[in-house]
Amino acid sequence: MNCMAGEFDFIRWIRAEQAPSARVMLPAGDDLAVLRWPAGQWLLVGADQVLDGVHFDSQLHSPRLIGQKAMNRNLSDCAAMAGLPMAAVATVALPRGTALGYAQELYRGARDAGALFNCPLVGGDTATWDGKLALSISILAGGDGIDPITRGGAKPGNELYVTGPLGGSIGGRHMTFVPRVAEARALARGGRITAMIDLSDGLSRDLQHICDMSHTGALLYASAIPIHPDVTGQAGPSSQNALHHALNDGEDYELLYSACSGGGVPPSPGIRIGRVTAEPGIMIETTDGRRQPLRPQAWEHPLS
Amino acid sequence: MNCMAGEFDFIRWIRAEQAPSARVMLPAGDDLAVLRWPAGQWLLVGADQVLDGVHFDSQLHSPRLIGQKAMNRNLSDCAAMAGLPMAAVATVALPRGTALGYAQELYRGARDAGALFNCPLVGGDTATWDGKLALSISILAGGDGIDPITRGGAKPGNELYVTGPLGGSIGGRHMTFVPRVAEARALARGGRITAMIDLSDGLSRDLQHICDMSHTGALLYASAIPIHPDVTGQAGPSSQNALHHALNDGEDYELLYSACSGGGVPPSPGIRIGRVTAEPGIMIETTDGRRQPLRPQAWEHPLS
Repeated sequence: MNCMAGEFDFIRWIRAEQAPSARVMLPAGDDLAVLRWPAGQWLLVGADQVLDGVHFDSQLHSPRLIGQKAMNRNLSDCAAMAGLPMAAVATVALPRGTALGYAQELYRGARDAGALFNCPLVGGDTATWDGKLALSISILAGGDGIDPITRGGAKPGNELYVTGPLGGSIGGRHMTFVPRVAEARALARGGRITAMIDLSDGLSRDLQHICDMSHTGALLYASAIPIHPDVTGQAGPSSQNALHHALNDGEDYELLYSACSGGGVPPSPGIRIGRVTAEPGIMIETTDGRRQPLRPQAWEHPLS
Repeated sequence: MNCMAGEFDFIRWIRAEQAPSARVMLPAGDDLAVLRWPAGQWLLVGADQVLDGVHFDSQLHSPRLIGQKAMNRNLSDCAAMAGLPMAAVATVALPRGTALGYAQELYRGARDAGALFNCPLVGGDTATWDGKLALSISILAGGDGIDPITRGGAKPGNELYVTGPLGGSIGGRHMTFVPRVAEARALARGGRITAMIDLSDGLSRDLQHICDMSHTGALLYASAIPIHPDVTGQAGPSSQNALHHALNDGEDYELLYSACSGGGVPPSPGIRIGRVTAEPGIMIETTDGRRQPLRPQAWEHPLS
């Protein structure tokens, strides 16, 4: 899920409104909902959308890339829970007058992205309207021998990792990222991961989601935050500015996870960036050893 | 699925493009896709959307009714396959500046409609954009002891039934219909149903879908087509005009199904309207005994 103004309020309200169900192990608020179906099996399900002017720009991006991003955002949600993608369905709202060839390219982009992870696009709905292009995909995933990793399992003393360098995805990477499905499965198989999320809202905000759901705080090491080369190109030589991008830019689609300490060997392919604390709030330790509160930045889609 | 200009071409193309998968028993083109997951179990999944100006009018309809219709269209797809609804996820694209209270009413409408069929809304995504309101819902259903009924099983000699009177839903019923989930389960349990579809595109077009998938034709009895009282209010006293509405209006959300003959007792709660023929094409027998071809009308959403 990407955050929009007010979305977190809405999700909090939905969580409070939901009636408990024997079938639902984990309702709205994590990356995917977790069902117990059939008895003894996990079934994960989620939905995510891409909208013209928010998640892509139809004047700038090809329909194939748009379809690919829609599927990959859903696959990234599967990765966040270490789920094995199984199948997807899509609805597409096409501006009136859209050519068949354009719709076909949207489909090919989504289908081919899913196929890389053995996740066929099996159905859905197409409609034409006097509105802008909107593509919504829902995804099913199984546990396949691995219990889902939620946002709520981090424990004080756990170490915090990310799977890759952060920031600057607006330069183009937000359309072309590769969802970390395989990495997530490997990490979860290792047995030391306690909580996980995919970085869509930006490190500072997504870490806050883990802290909120786990009832913990966190300490980040400024010098350890991996900064993507894309940032350097965009932010110029100021390292302070580059760190700001790595902490707050959205749509990295790397994984952020907490793990039990394991004798100094980080769970591959992680980059250690901090640790989970008992005290609430997120602190950052600067290179000169000072600690200061990290205020999650209200990230907005740069396109919107 | 509702049909839009060109949608059938697009779906035909998608069917041809789909790679076979051991997991997918029935791909895009029916009301829901049918997966074999886990081994020995049916898992049905589909997606449907409602768009401002096409399926509802945000100036006219309350957010609660809009949410309700979005869920009920998906529940109607479950009914069409005799599936047992299990859970749903939603994405909503909100026009910038939408009040939280409006979003909450959309959610309540969808959630409460699902709850009537023990189908919790378990997750999804919300985003705000410079566009119109679009609500997409995906639904999961199980077989629960009943094999899915497809569009492709009709056999010459089968009788054709609908579950209720047709036409005129644009007067308001298209927002307030009750999906025929319970009726579908009861019918399928009876064991005589061979093919089924929910009437969203209008009887003439949806019957064509069954004929196409079953490689059959059909004969309808004009005098047997049940005409909804809504039609009489809208169409005036001409019975020819009323029949036209019952045959071609969309969004009835009744079930159309074929069944083996069973000693003259129609499968409750069906109204017999015709029979399946070996000859391709749909014919209609008028009250004076003449038979003429029935041309499926290209139904357009009256709102669009």
